[in-house]
Amino acid sequence: MRPAPLPGDDLEGVDTPALLVDAESFDRNLAMMAALAARGGIALRPHAKSHKTPVVAQRQIAAGAVGICCAKLGEAEVMVSGGVADVLITTPVVGRHKLERLARCAHLARMAVVVDSPANLAAVAEAIESAGTSLDVLIEVDVGQNRCGVRSAQEAIALADIAARCPRLTLRGLQGYNGAIQGVPVRATRHDAASASLDILREVAETLRTRGHDVKTLTGGGTGTIAIDIALGGLTESQAGSYIYMDSSYRRLDWEDGAPIPFATSLSVLSTVISRPTRDLAVLDAGWKALSSDAGVPSLAHPWAEEVSFGGDEHLKVRLNADGRALRVGDRVAIIPSHCDTTVNLYDHFVLMRDDRVEQVWPILGRGRSD
Amino acid sequence: MRPAPLPGDDLEGVDTPALLVDAESFDRNLAMMAALAARGGIALRPHAKSHKTPVVAQRQIAAGAVGICCAKLGEAEVMVSGGVADVLITTPVVGRHKLERLARCAHLARMAVVVDSPANLAAVAEAIESAGTSLDVLIEVDVGQNRCGVRSAQEAIALADIAARCPRLTLRGLQGYNGAIQGVPVRATRHDAASASLDILREVAETLRTRGHDVKTLTGGGTGTIAIDIALGGLTESQAGSYIYMDSSYRRLDWEDGAPIPFATSLSVLSTVISRPTRDLAVLDAGWKALSSDAGVPSLAHPWAEEVSFGGDEHLKVRLNADGRALRVGDRVAIIPSHCDTTVNLYDHFVLMRDDRVEQVWPILGRGRSD
Repeated sequence: MRPAPLPGDDLEGVDTPALLVDAESFDRNLAMMAALAARGGIALRPHAKSHKTPVVAQRQIAAGAVGICCAKLGEAEVMVSGGVADVLITTPVVGRHKLERLARCAHLARMAVVVDSPANLAAVAEAIESAGTSLDVLIEVDVGQNRCGVRSAQEAIALADIAARCPRLTLRGLQGYNGAIQGVPVRATRHDAASASLDILREVAETLRTRGHDVKTLTGGGTGTIAIDIALGGLTESQAGSYIYMDSSYRRLDWEDGAPIPFATSLSVLSTVISRPTRDLAVLDAGWKALSSDAGVPSLAHPWAEEVSFGGDEHLKVRLNADGRALRVGDRVAIIPSHCDTTVNLYDHFVLMRDDRVEQVWPILGRGRSD
Repeated sequence: MRPAPLPGDDLEGVDTPALLVDAESFDRNLAMMAALAARGGIALRPHAKSHKTPVVAQRQIAAGAVGICCAKLGEAEVMVSGGVADVLITTPVVGRHKLERLARCAHLARMAVVVDSPANLAAVAEAIESAGTSLDVLIEVDVGQNRCGVRSAQEAIALADIAARCPRLTLRGLQGYNGAIQGVPVRATRHDAASASLDILREVAETLRTRGHDVKTLTGGGTGTIAIDIALGGLTESQAGSYIYMDSSYRRLDWEDGAPIPFATSLSVLSTVISRPTRDLAVLDAGWKALSSDAGVPSLAHPWAEEVSFGGDEHLKVRLNADGRALRVGDRVAIIPSHCDTTVNLYDHFVLMRDDRVEQVWPILGRGRSD
């Protein structure tokens, strides 16, 4: 519905609020992560929840990714429809109707899904059996997130035993994802937490192997821990996603020897100053409906702000410092989202900019597909 | 993109997460607010930011509303395309391209827009003049929100004088909206704040009138203050919007003589239990991408929760009380959003339920239209 700019337009042709991607930073992030994973001997399966866009998934695969992750079935349907050939759904898929949809995807692509309960696994097996297709499953293990996932090796064994009795299911391995530690700024703290999570996952894997189960894949991790995961060894596959865009939360991380995280911020929300009611206040046309707030307030790309605060559904309030006071009604201001995934989910397309021109417009076909 | 259920389906046919509207509560809220406004002698111009849906706007108008408010031009375009004949845009519209779009709307419907700066007002006048159409303007006055709006009667006079010199513009009146006070639970506190806001607005109106300007409309207020606004007198038009749906923030309000707010919760997000990893924990398939978090965590429609917390983009974690422990994987759970406006903006359609059947599906055509 929202009108899209045209390739070749300059920034003036882009109406606000708009979700911009800086092509140069994006390309660099893509190449840098591909090289990091290749050098580290870890398969890269980027999480598509960060972009929800088949065009972006295809670029990641062209750069060497083995496939992609999706958080939900709806997202996976969009990716499979966009020709992505290898998808792991990282959340249990529950309900008869959804399992029929999953089976349809399994006819089109190499699909895998995580499971963490016997009832759900039995339902998955039945749906795949009656559709006459096949599917890989991974057992989700809670490694500290306290969300989904089995809490013990015993539970994992029970699931692996069920899977082994289903000819159309293949146990691919385990998923252990600890999202909360991805954004921990201090590397040493992040390292210890990632190490503790990995220990849990490895112990479950070993127990399953001693019971004769083939556990090839240990998948998990993210942008915040990939260098640590490589150094620790153990994970066979990283689910890093945010690296392509980055956000102000990830920008806070240190990386190695005190150096900052090497991925550049490529994502921004372009906004317009719609009011300058006092000397120090600028009101921008982007509020909660244009910028997610789950990770706090966003920041400005330029050093003009003493303070940034939401002013409701459609307003962002900026208390300006001396440098910012020249801002006038109609001026454009770039905003760095505090959380890329949830901000992306508010938009219908990305506007890819190179050399101050629109290069491409990418439809976010997975937007809103939490189903 | 998201597959929609069909009228006649039962709840099992509705895939989750889904945005449900209880038809009975919705109808009652609609009628109750219409009666309240009519009895109080205040025009009702409901804010469409709460629903972003032409079908709903038409129902409000059929129930007696004089027109609707839109927060943004993109929202207004959707409403005008849906046949809504009278729209007030409650945020300044800035930029050449946007003003051309505004002029196109003014060819199709009776349009009004708020202004708060001379430069913007001059640009509005120029766009309307060159399009050969006409437009009403209202001067936005800051009445305590500290967002957009003129800060003094002198600034309002300057704007009114400019408008008076533009033959295609008509000064309709003033807007003074104090969003922050709408959700104040205690009526006496809310009353005093609304009264202070109204005093500011009335003083500016009086000053303009003594200068010979015709100030017919004083518009503002919301669901939280409409009864107070009626009792105080002064506002000619209320912008209440949330009353049709309600959310857990508004549910906290007292109304009159200690009685609770009379509007019923008609909006909920239907979710599915996707994991029951421990005795006390249920994980639902609705996170930040299915429920807004700007007003805090949502609540469950049933008294099953000791505590509700977000578990990321796609998960809601519920610590269950003794009553909730019977919940199993696959069970459906209704969630009450903490903020209706921003939750609605995540979905492509409402599912209207009556007697446990899908009655209608309403496309949310204004979703994402912050432009």
